[in-house]
Amino acid sequence: MFKRLCLIGIGLIGSSIALRARQEGLAETIVVSTRRQETLDRAKARNLGDVYTDKVSEAVQGADCVILCTPVGSFASLGERIGPHLADGCIVTDVGSVKRSVVKQLKPHLPKNVHLVPGHPIAGTEYSGPDAGFATLFDERWCLLTPEQGTDKQAVEKLTSFWQGLGSWVEVMEPDHHDMVLAVTSHIPHLIAYNIVGTASELEEVTQSEVVKFSASGFRDFTRIAASDPVMWRDVFLHNKDAVIEMLGRFSEDLSRLQRAVRNGDGDLLFEHFTKTRDIRRGIIEAGQETDLPNFGRDVVVDTESNS
Amino acid sequence: MFKRLCLIGIGLIGSSIALRARQEGLAETIVVSTRRQETLDRAKARNLGDVYTDKVSEAVQGADCVILCTPVGSFASLGERIGPHLADGCIVTDVGSVKRSVVKQLKPHLPKNVHLVPGHPIAGTEYSGPDAGFATLFDERWCLLTPEQGTDKQAVEKLTSFWQGLGSWVEVMEPDHHDMVLAVTSHIPHLIAYNIVGTASELEEVTQSEVVKFSASGFRDFTRIAASDPVMWRDVFLHNKDAVIEMLGRFSEDLSRLQRAVRNGDGDLLFEHFTKTRDIRRGIIEAGQETDLPNFGRDVVVDTESNS
Repeated sequence: MFKRLCLIGIGLIGSSIALRARQEGLAETIVVSTRRQETLDRAKARNLGDVYTDKVSEAVQGADCVILCTPVGSFASLGERIGPHLADGCIVTDVGSVKRSVVKQLKPHLPKNVHLVPGHPIAGTEYSGPDAGFATLFDERWCLLTPEQGTDKQAVEKLTSFWQGLGSWVEVMEPDHHDMVLAVTSHIPHLIAYNIVGTASELEEVTQSEVVKFSASGFRDFTRIAASDPVMWRDVFLHNKDAVIEMLGRFSEDLSRLQRAVRNGDGDLLFEHFTKTRDIRRGIIEAGQETDLPNFGRDVVVDTESNS
Repeated sequence: MFKRLCLIGIGLIGSSIALRARQEGLAETIVVSTRRQETLDRAKARNLGDVYTDKVSEAVQGADCVILCTPVGSFASLGERIGPHLADGCIVTDVGSVKRSVVKQLKPHLPKNVHLVPGHPIAGTEYSGPDAGFATLFDERWCLLTPEQGTDKQAVEKLTSFWQGLGSWVEVMEPDHHDMVLAVTSHIPHLIAYNIVGTASELEEVTQSEVVKFSASGFRDFTRIAASDPVMWRDVFLHNKDAVIEMLGRFSEDLSRLQRAVRNGDGDLLFEHFTKTRDIRRGIIEAGQETDLPNFGRDVVVDTESNS
């Protein structure tokens, strides 16, 4: 599909792309570029690419597809450095969790005959780095592409096929709408999880050891996403400020309503709210985006006694 | 251990106690009592007890241990109905998620020679009902007992051994402290999860279908606990109002701080906060209360390619 695929950044997402692209034969040559020698060594050890370099300007030369897999805060600087070295007809894309900012950061630096098609695979884990990737990460997960109007159709189609080859379902979306949707489904959940884990670990009345021991009562679920990569998430919030603050406002308004219900002992309101929220999980399970095993299946035990 | 164990309520927790108690031979006779005939029939079909009745006053007669496994809002009424029928020396306990209110609701109704030892196993899933229980639910999970000062030591010891027999680790705690700890580790996480799932499903700008499709970006984690039993959770909030409102205040203060950092573009504050929260998950994994598999192990795939 691509002759020379260049991955800039080789963390969880970059390494997963590399593994699957190689498995499926989606690129003749895979160029891996990353700043830190240690990361490059790990990528080599896992045999993620064919060419390895810490120089991005060299990495992109002759590539027909360049994928930025670094935190989104690095894109303006990367664009500036790779822009002059991009080949005619090259597709430049990324895997960042915000999209309006990506266009804004990259566009000024790209030559005319290069196709910018920002992308965002909705897949990941709480682990990061080149050892965290695995080839099936994108299977049956959505990848959103947010090309601007007027973008070369063939470039969008080619990138669509590429992501389908990685196992994804692909949808095209406006960057602003993307940023609003992801603020709700991802950015606010992460901010809230980071927040409550912070709150819990700084209490005077409750020791950290108690929080840890009794976490199976609900708290531990939040610690997973609060263990996500700090640099990546810092950049997400800095680059999707407006949508995050807008959605955080809605969240806080709604929380005030529940808080008032607790204060006033309004059991009917609580019951009604808690009943409605059950349906949406059912929808997510039916859409193939979640397991229906209790506790995410994390303590699945074959229990013959209870199944008899 | 017990001659006649009476379980009032046979949902997720009650049925799990029944299965494990029978497996370990912790009770000669298990009496199952529940209000709804349909639930009683399911309990019979799963062979959870030896005696089944919808009359609690009959159920408790002759029992040396009675465990209330119904939502905590029912305890005052249950106490009133069972009080006159309890045998001398009987241990009365429960599995409710709040503890001060349990003492307050039950104590006035219990005769002198009965031992009240409130309990709370820190274990569960998002499923409810007699079919949701399984014998290993309590394995390596903590169970908190909150007897008042002056409670018969032998009763506390016996109940401790019983929970250990079910697979739990046991700790004794003051009821007020319990309610504060659980507000943080459980009640606030649930309220927040219920809240954000509500917020997301009521937006005009983002369709419910988008929330479902792109939920793998973080949101789906929250839907699990927001799918928990609505009656149980309504009662938890009504019966732990003070601690919940206190801890919600801390949560909101902390969230305002993060919100301000997003608004001001304070990347250092965000990075620092997001770094600290990683440690607590590590602690929970090391304490045996969580899996270290990515995404809770829910999409574990044996990937020989990437492990080579």
